[in-house]
Formats: sequence, structure tokens, C-alpha cells
Amino acid sequence: MEKIINLNADLGESFGAWSMGDDAALLNIINSANIACGFHAGDPSVMLKTIKQAKTCRVSLGAHPSFPDLQGFGRRIMHLSGDEIQAMLIYQLGALAGLAHSQGGKLTHVKPHGALSNLACENMDIAQHIVNAIKNFDPTLIVLAPACSALAEAAQIAYLPTALEIFADRTYTELGHLRPRHEPGAVLHEEQNCITHVFSMLNAGGLVTPSQRIIPTAIHSICVHGDGPNAVHIAQALRTALIKADWKCIPLPAMPIFNM
Amino acid sequence: MEKIINLNADLGESFGAWSMGDDAALLNIINSANIACGFHAGDPSVMLKTIKQAKTCRVSLGAHPSFPDLQGFGRRIMHLSGDEIQAMLIYQLGALAGLAHSQGGKLTHVKPHGALSNLACENMDIAQHIVNAIKNFDPTLIVLAPACSALAEAAQIAYLPTALEIFADRTYTELGHLRPRHEPGAVLHEEQNCITHVFSMLNAGGLVTPSQRIIPTAIHSICVHGDGPNAVHIAQALRTALIKADWKCIPLPAMPIFNM
Amino acid sequence: MEKIINLNADLGESFGAWSMGDDAALLNIINSANIACGFHAGDPSVMLKTIKQAKTCRVSLGAHPSFPDLQGFGRRIMHLSGDEIQAMLIYQLGALAGLAHSQGGKLTHVKPHGALSNLACENMDIAQHIVNAIKNFDPTLIVLAPACSALAEAAQIAYLPTALEIFADRTYTELGHLRPRHEPGAVLHEEQNCITHVFSMLNAGGLVTPSQRIIPTAIHSICVHGDGPNAVHIAQALRTALIKADWKCIPLPAMPIFNM
Amino acid sequence: MEKIINLNADLGESFGAWSMGDDAALLNIINSANIACGFHAGDPSVMLKTIKQAKTCRVSLGAHPSFPDLQGFGRRIMHLSGDEIQAMLIYQLGALAGLAHSQGGKLTHVKPHGALSNLACENMDIAQHIVNAIKNFDPTLIVLAPACSALAEAAQIAYLPTALEIFADRTYTELGHLRPRHEPGAVLHEEQNCITHVFSMLNAGGLVTPSQRIIPTAIHSICVHGDGPNAVHIAQALRTALIKADWKCIPLPAMPIFNM
Repeated sequence: MEKIINLNADLGESFGAWSMGDDAALLNIINSANIACGFHAGDPSVMLKTIKQAKTCRVSLGAHPSFPDLQGFGRRIMHLSGDEIQAMLIYQLGALAGLAHSQGGKLTHVKPHGALSNLACENMDIAQHIVNAIKNFDPTLIVLAPACSALAEAAQIAYLPTALEIFADRTYTELGHLRPRHEPGAVLHEEQNCITHVFSMLNAGGLVTPSQRIIPTAIHSICVHGDGPNAVHIAQALRTALIKADWKCIPLPAMPIFNM
Repeated sequence: MEKIINLNADLGESFGAWSMGDDAALLNIINSANIACGFHAGDPSVMLKTIKQAKTCRVSLGAHPSFPDLQGFGRRIMHLSGDEIQAMLIYQLGALAGLAHSQGGKLTHVKPHGALSNLACENMDIAQHIVNAIKNFDPTLIVLAPACSALAEAAQIAYLPTALEIFADRTYTELGHLRPRHEPGAVLHEEQNCITHVFSMLNAGGLVTPSQRIIPTAIHSICVHGDGPNAVHIAQALRTALIKADWKCIPLPAMPIFNM
Repeated sequence: MEKIINLNADLGESFGAWSMGDDAALLNIINSANIACGFHAGDPSVMLKTIKQAKTCRVSLGAHPSFPDLQGFGRRIMHLSGDEIQAMLIYQLGALAGLAHSQGGKLTHVKPHGALSNLACENMDIAQHIVNAIKNFDPTLIVLAPACSALAEAAQIAYLPTALEIFADRTYTELGHLRPRHEPGAVLHEEQNCITHVFSMLNAGGLVTPSQRIIPTAIHSICVHGDGPNAVHIAQALRTALIKADWKCIPLPAMPIFNM
Repeated sequence: MEKIINLNADLGESFGAWSMGDDAALLNIINSANIACGFHAGDPSVMLKTIKQAKTCRVSLGAHPSFPDLQGFGRRIMHLSGDEIQAMLIYQLGALAGLAHSQGGKLTHVKPHGALSNLACENMDIAQHIVNAIKNFDPTLIVLAPACSALAEAAQIAYLPTALEIFADRTYTELGHLRPRHEPGAVLHEEQNCITHVFSMLNAGGLVTPSQRIIPTAIHSICVHGDGPNAVHIAQALRTALIKADWKCIPLPAMPIFNM
């Protein structure tokens, strides 16, 4: 069986005069980009530039919608109604899809950002509002969701194409949730640790918990980062290791994604 | 020959807890709505609600994009680059189109708002940036532009379907431009004056200047307003007068609009 | 003993082209204004205008700071750090104090708005961050807080002058907290009910719970509203009833407020 | 006669998760900081942090108010009324002064930012609105203005303490205005050129035009920058050269500034 995997990263998180991340470097490593939609980062001009760059690098285009919170970079929880979340999400998807379309590109996936994503991974109600919004906007969009999350479950229940992702630099709880960032060992900083972590999950066919228990799950994509001192370096090393181990890295729309 | 005309108005200009205009009343009068896209008014929830209401009333959906200026309601000129204007415009068109699409609706026209529109009516360079943005987003969209404006000319040069509008309550200069609001006589407040003004232009087949000179132009649409003490009343009276005079009021997409 | 009381209301909640409330009417009824500081409502021009109006009517000036959320009118909970809350609060206090100072006026009290206030009434940690901010900005400012709230307690613990308010149109739980708006009977809509409610508390010297239990508290101020169909009418009737019953309505800085 | 001069720079231009400039390095070089006030950069938390850092380094505190335009970093002209400019300015001054005050610090100067500054340097009407706002807020504040600008003139006419600045890395027109950035030679990139440029002006007692004409002016301050590849390096070198040449670098409030 052919070993295929996707590498994704958050892109286009600059805003106006402020830069963030090394998008140019990441675009040569990843296959799919989660592009900020103006609510936590990414003004219209940044979005357009990012779309153009991604297209040049044959990286598939995804939306990275957020709570409306530039100052907090979408990382602060906001208590919004389900209707507000849905309207706000479609607004962002439409804006990015429109910019993509203007460049002959096409939006093919959605991955919620920050606090909105964290809520959607734990709270089935929020997850369903997000999934409803995506379904009403375009039911062919792939939902890129953390494996074993409420968001993934909601997307699958709604029969949306659902890509399950693991994180190269984040470890899991015994229940298969991401360990909170502030806990020791929650974030892996060493290149070799990240690579070992990813391969242990790919080989096991599931998440690996601290007690080495395996939580079986399909794994379609690996999330890498472009911020942090040596993030790009780690992402590059991971990609090299994957290719060396005969994994083929492909964009999300090329993945055979079914609903289970 | 059948006498057909369109009535358009700006809608969805509430924001969060703040209301503006009497959308419900206007929707029973007009045929096409210019819907705020979040930059000068209209948050995502307001946009969604307005789209639903317009669909129920069989009013066609148009975008009313603006400079990014909530406090100034898009009425303050901002010096943006052409690239910024284009990206900002497509962002707004996409956002509204996405929300419309989520309701089974379709965006069919664009009419710039406020200071952006004023600039586009006078400045061919700005007009062309707006037209380019619309063309790149969706070249089937109707550009709703004031008759005899630079925006109308730019849209026609770009072979975009262009609907030419007159204003029920605004008078013109000898050159066919809107007289600045602060000039005496620039704004008509009386119902009968508005009706007489509109019919004089429809009958003449052109704008009528203060010296009663006629500047010939096609007239596809009449802009009415929903704010102001008796704006809705005037709009209703105008519609009644038009129907009585055998004018048929229809949505913009039903108008036979060609590029000349 | 002289019967003195203060009437306060939220003011200056317009924004740009959008109006809210009947400030002009309220200013002839109340003694102290809680003025929006730009984060949930009230742009700088609205703030300046409100300050001028309040000064003309000899209404004392208070700040009504909020979470940064124009679309949600500050009514949506946001999870901010204590440091963020403190900085954000002082920013707003400073801005309003500066505008007041430019008109020869002086900021004399602070009353948090919306979701920030709700959190501060229940959560001692949030309350203390707010109180710290006020203390660091100006320890002579009066904290206007609901009677029996965590905010009132935190203010008193910090030795800030603390004015305790009751609500003319809101009923309480058995614990002395405001009943949530969505509960039946939580909001009083009838003029006579509001007046009876207020007098029962003033006469009892405490909050009156649904079981007619009295929770003793000092009462320095009564909060009235200017939005809603007959809010101004109720406020006026309450003021008339108070004066008829020999209550003297005075601005907050004229109240003898001590820390207990 | 003692040779005294001030070095100033724009600080606190980060926003939320986005960083800008090397404030820590600059604070060891300059004597006075122009701190962003939240309208083009600098959220309340960034402002508070910057104030703390500046105080630690004994750098005097100034406000750097701007048009309300985060995306454009305050560099895009906006057409605001004089009343809007005044209210917006006092809002920002008050916010920063409040945060400074909460740290036991004091705001001592004002320097407009970006497009607002450019307008104020050319347009006496705009300059006077800015000066009026400052005067109404606190007439003891020093206006830090480019030498030979309309802003400097307006401040002096209003009897505000006015510090005149030159730019280490910018050259002038024959009329004594800054040459537009896009013109060749407008910006100096070499350390030695900047130092030579500054000393030629200090020694001449005036601006030096391209034809080597001298436009006499008092010079109280030199503006240096912290962005750009070697800006901090140039600023440090300039400071070293000044000290070597027996110039004493002091904060603005220590400068003997009179109105002439």
C-alpha cells in the first residue's frame, strides 16, 4: 500500500505592516496552507499575496477562520452564539474563497484557528455550528480537524470530507487530546523528538499517549509550524525523514478522504 | 416598447446592537438591495439576516463594499493603493457572496458605497481598480453605477454589464455629476419634487441639469433611501407613481443590460 | 436624617453614524452618567459630545469601560488575562478622563459595562483586577458597583470609595444577585412595578429577594435605563416619585461614601 | 555654550502577537520615546510594557497619536473633520497619559505619527487642530515637530513648548521639507552619511538643502529609527559620535525650550 500523507501549516498571519512566520520557507515544505481570513490575522492584501504564493508552490488552499480578535490573535475565548459563529465563519470562508477565485484558485479545506479550534475540539455544540457553516457554504470542502476531536466527529457525522491531523510538536493526554501548552512536555522543541513522535504515530496507526497506549485513528495530515526559532528547520527535517521513509507528501484534495 | 425600471436602495446598514434604516419597509418597495459588507456597516449576522429578508421579498442581492471605516460609516476618504482597493473589494464581495450562497441565493450586482463611490465617480484610476476587482471576482456581476460617472465608463470599457442609476432625491451639475450635498438644492426633500425629478429624467432619456439641459443616458435604475424622516414614504410614493405610469419595476438581473 | 440618593444611567452609547438611547432626555433625569469609552460603544467624538452635554446638565462624569467588542456591544464574555484587563481598563479611563479634562471636567466614578461587569460581580479575581486598575489610575475615583457583588467587595477591600447601586427594573435571586435576564420576572417593564421595587428596597435598607427576605446593604445609587420603549418614561416617573417622597437626588461625588 | 541635544524614536509599535522594532536596544540610545497609542499600533498591554521599559531607562514619555488605521499603520491619509481629529487626538493622549500615570510616570511630549504628521507638516489647518487638541488636553506638553513644518509653526503660534527635530536618515527639499521617501536620495542608509548629515545641520544651525543652502532653525532633537536592517546600529553610532563631539544627549523635558 502506498504511504501518503499531507503536511499542513498556518500561513498568511502577517497583518498590515507586521510580519509573522516564514511563509516563503514553509511553502516549499508543506502541501496545504491554512490561510488567515482577516479576523485574527491576514488583511485582504496579505490574503491575496499568500494565495498567489501558495498557488505558485502548488500548495492547496485552506481557510483558517477565527474569532474576531486581532489583538488577541484569535487565542482568547469569546462567548458567541451559534448563529454568530456560523455567520462569522461563512463570512471568512467567502472572503478567502473570493480572493482565491480571483486568482484562478480554489478553496479546498477549512481548519479553525486558535481559541475557536480549541473550543470546537472539546465542545460538540460549537463543533456542530462550525460544521453547519461549512456545509452550508460548500459541502465539498475538506474539514481539517485534529484526530479524536469533537470537531472531527461532528464533521464525519455531517458527512463532510474530514482529514484527520496530528501535530509534529505536540503531545497528547491519555484521552487523545492535545496536552495544554503550559504543561511540561506538552510541546516538543527538538527536531529528533518531533520526528520520532510523528513516526511512532504513523507506524502505530494512532495517537500515542504518555503511557504508550495507542488510540487508533486514521492520520491524513501532519501540522507543522513556521514560527518559533527553529520551526522551519524542524518542518524541513520532518519532510526529509518522511520522504526517506517512502512517505509521499501530497495536497489535501489529492488524499483519498472518505467519511467513516 | 415596454417601460421597465429598477428601484435600488442601500440595506443591511445596522451593526451589532445598532440599528439603521427601515429595511423591512424598503424591501416591499425596491427590487434590488445594495447590502453592506462589514467594512462601513453590516456585521456577518446582519448580512445574513438581510440576505434572508431580501430573498423572501424577491429582491435581488448586491454588494455595497466600502473603505474600512466603521466609525466614519465609509464616508471619509482614505488614500489606499490600487492593490489595496482591489484586495479589499474582493474580500467584501466574497464574504457577501458566501453568505448569499449559504442561503441558496446569488450575488448579482455591486455598487460601491460612500467615499469609495464618490472617488470612483470622479477618478478613472480608482474606477478601474474597482472594475478590475469585480471582473476578477465574477465578470457576470452587474456594476450599478451613477449615470455619466467615471465608474460607469470604466465598467463599460471593461465589458462588464453596467446598470446606470439616477437618484430620486439628488440634483445634478451642468456636467451631469451629483451636486455636493451641502449645496442648496442638492437634496430634494419633498415627495412631489422627487417624483417630478425622476419623471423628467425618464421622459427625457437623460439627466436634467439646472439649466434644463438634457444629458442623454440610458437609465436602468433609480436609487431611493430608507433613512431620513420620510424617506420610505417618498420611495413608496415614487413606486406608486411609476406603476401608475405603466413603468414595470424589476430586479437588476431581469433588466436587459448590454455594454454599449 | 436627610434622604439622599443618586440616579445613574449608561450614556454615550452611540457610535459614528449609529444612534442609541435618548441621552438628552436622560440627562435631565439622572445625576451621574456612565459614559462608554470606545470599546463597546462611543467613539471619541461621541464621548466628547456626551461629556459636554453632561456638564451642561450638571451630571457627574463616570467611565463605563468594556471588553473590546463593538459588534457584541461588550456583552460577550472574553477570556482575557488579568494584565490585559488592567491595561485595557486604564486605557479607557485615561481616554475618557483626557476628554473630560479638555472640557474642564473631571472623571469621578467608574462602572464596568456588560459582560465585564457581569464577570466582575461574580468572580473575585476579575473584580480585583478591575479594582487594581482603578486604584493605579486614580484611587479617588468612586467605584459604582451593584450592591452585594464581588466587585463591590473588592473595591471596599482595596479602600476605594464604593457606591452601591440597585436596579430599578431588575429583580434579585435569593443570594442577592441579579436574576439572569432570560428568566421570567427578571426584568420589570411596568412603571409602577419599578417604583414599588425601588421603594421596597430603600425602605428596607437592603435588597429584597423573591421570598421577601431582606439582604441589608447601603444603597447609594439607582440605575435607570434609556433604551427600551418606555425606559425614559419610567426613569422620569421614578425620579418624580423619589422627590415626592422627600428623597434628594444628587451626583455621586456629593454622596457621603465611606469604606466600611 | 553647552551643546545639548535630544535623541527621539518611535516605540511601542508592536500589536498583540506581532512585534515591531527593537525597543530594548533603542531605549539604551535615545532620550525620549514617541509611544504608539493604539490607533496605528500599540495595544494597551504593549503601551503599558513600553512605558515601564522607558521609565527603567530614564527615557521621557511622549505620545505618538495617529489616524485610526491598524491595517495601514497610520500611513494612509484619511479625510477627517477638524473636530474628529481633535477628539481622536485627546482620546489617544488621555489613554497613554493614564497608563503612564498608573506607573508613576508622566507624559511630557506629543509627536503625531505617519500620515497625520505628514498632513500636519504641510497643512496649517490640520496643524492647528492638532495643536488645539494638545493645548486643551495639557498646555505644558512639548510638541515635537519637524523643523520648518506647519506643525512647528502652529505650535509656536499657540505658545506651546515646541521642540524642533531633524531626521538622521532623511534629506530635505530646497524649501526645507522632507523629500518624499520614493525619491532617490531621500533616505540615507549608510551610517557615515547619516552622521555627516546630522553634524552638517548641527554645525550650520539649520537645515541643509540639496544645493547646500542653509535654512536657519533651532534644532532640539534628532529622530532615529529602530526598524530597518541596521537602524539601531546607525542610531548607536550617531549617539557615540555626538558624545565624542561633546554633545550632551538629554530628555526633552530637560531641554530649555521656549516659544519664539
